[in-house]
Amino acid sequence: MTRGPVVALSGGVGGAKLALGLSRVLPASDLTVIANTGDDFEHLGLSICPDIDTLTYALAGLDNPATGWGRRDETWSFMDSIKALGGEDWFRLGDRDLAVHVERTRRLRSGEALSQITIDFAARLGIGVRILPMSDDPVRTRVLSDGGWIDFQDYFVRQQCRPVVRALSFDGAPMSQPAPGVIQALRTAGAIVICPSNPFISIEPILAVPGIREAIEASGAPVVAVSPIIGGKAVKGPTAKMMAELGMDATALGVALRYGDLLNGYVVEHEDAADVAGFGARVTAAKTLMQSLEDREALARVVLEAADSLRR
Amino acid sequence: MTRGPVVALSGGVGGAKLALGLSRVLPASDLTVIANTGDDFEHLGLSICPDIDTLTYALAGLDNPATGWGRRDETWSFMDSIKALGGEDWFRLGDRDLAVHVERTRRLRSGEALSQITIDFAARLGIGVRILPMSDDPVRTRVLSDGGWIDFQDYFVRQQCRPVVRALSFDGAPMSQPAPGVIQALRTAGAIVICPSNPFISIEPILAVPGIREAIEASGAPVVAVSPIIGGKAVKGPTAKMMAELGMDATALGVALRYGDLLNGYVVEHEDAADVAGFGARVTAAKTLMQSLEDREALARVVLEAADSLRR
Repeated sequence: MTRGPVVALSGGVGGAKLALGLSRVLPASDLTVIANTGDDFEHLGLSICPDIDTLTYALAGLDNPATGWGRRDETWSFMDSIKALGGEDWFRLGDRDLAVHVERTRRLRSGEALSQITIDFAARLGIGVRILPMSDDPVRTRVLSDGGWIDFQDYFVRQQCRPVVRALSFDGAPMSQPAPGVIQALRTAGAIVICPSNPFISIEPILAVPGIREAIEASGAPVVAVSPIIGGKAVKGPTAKMMAELGMDATALGVALRYGDLLNGYVVEHEDAADVAGFGARVTAAKTLMQSLEDREALARVVLEAADSLRR
Repeated sequence: MTRGPVVALSGGVGGAKLALGLSRVLPASDLTVIANTGDDFEHLGLSICPDIDTLTYALAGLDNPATGWGRRDETWSFMDSIKALGGEDWFRLGDRDLAVHVERTRRLRSGEALSQITIDFAARLGIGVRILPMSDDPVRTRVLSDGGWIDFQDYFVRQQCRPVVRALSFDGAPMSQPAPGVIQALRTAGAIVICPSNPFISIEPILAVPGIREAIEASGAPVVAVSPIIGGKAVKGPTAKMMAELGMDATALGVALRYGDLLNGYVVEHEDAADVAGFGARVTAAKTLMQSLEDREALARVVLEAADSLRR
């Protein structure tokens, strides 16, 4: 059976784990990863794209296994020094990581598109898989807490997800266009994978770019999501807390209901299988916690098999 | 005898040595250093001010004694990383040094003046002496070589001073204004010191800012220069080569003739004293080669005594 190319929608840490797994069980030319850019922000005058970078570092084998973000073998001289100058130091930028932000910012200012820069950096770091930002236009996730609207990284990093989330907004999304290649990849996809990322802050910004949700629905390819919730808890990050604050059940079923009929298949941890049995998509129970490289590859195979079994 | 405040005009490495010496033999509130900004440039999207930074690092005790530029205990992760991304790596930016450029660029873009940022950085690094850029307006030294006009850092760093210099230009100088505080400092100076910097590329850009030369001439304070040439050789950098290429004698006398009647006093190495005996300013022979901290302090005392002996 010919599957055709696979497109994965991904945020940062959790999504990057599955993207790495997919990259190891598929030919490089058969995988496109569409990255959330709603978390992007300007900091110290630099354009920072956390999810693109986490994906790039993971796929290049440069990621920091201890943190999930940033680079391995990192040094922190820049942060020490900028603190002494009175600069902002709440967002940790390692010395190696910084080169990506400085060079990307320079190229963006010279008029290059984010997608072009992202593809070029990936090639220079030896990545065969295609990483695409969801859009070359700025889309910025903002969080409504009891104190008003705040920028996502202010909520996520500076305030460490402490504020109660009342609502989310993706500023700029209505006017944004999908990055070059995104719609074509979705149209010709043999399978579309929604990585185990936070549905609200990693996947929904992607779906908010006009044309992307429609292209997924029109593609005819099976759409398979992996739950980021295991036994009522998020593997990492604020997903469960955020779901509860937004009035939803912080469960695998809660995530599935949020995606609704976009999904044809849903991969959950074994212990959650019974809870989602009544959901409309075909459920696959598997080990979804990815600790080792083998876990990533095994889950990638489960997801691809689930998609293959759904192909019309 | 009351001397009053001292103003020093300085470029980078050589000038910073004497500035440090002066800072150690004068009360901090009695010294203002006016820094050349003709070497400044934009690189990787960052505003880099080599002479201001060399002075700042030297006066803060953060300088790299091995190179004379950059910072001590530096790390180079950023350079390794940007090279892998295809970024320009001919101008070496250490990780600690980089924080100065990033934070300065951010503040300049937000509308702050270079002089304000320079003063603030100095204060945060514990420097009591005042460091002022010659101007908050961009002045850019350019070099005419046989291949045409090139930017100064292209000549100085990328091409390592190999091109033959036919002429120099200080782009922007005619429209520039002295930075706030510069004219007032010169007007009220008790002594004006021209550090042993390259006269063409470090001191003349300062003198090219409209109003600065006039303020020096009008101040009534003795003006004492220290020769950057010892026995026909520059201590460091391309001064001697450049003088020869510009058709001048690469000697202490050649430098003195270039400054002309701006000088009241001239401090030269003992071996050069006879050569400059016929020059119009009062000559002081001393050890001008500054290898140790003691050398810097001793030369500073010689310069101040020379100025004191000239006070009208």
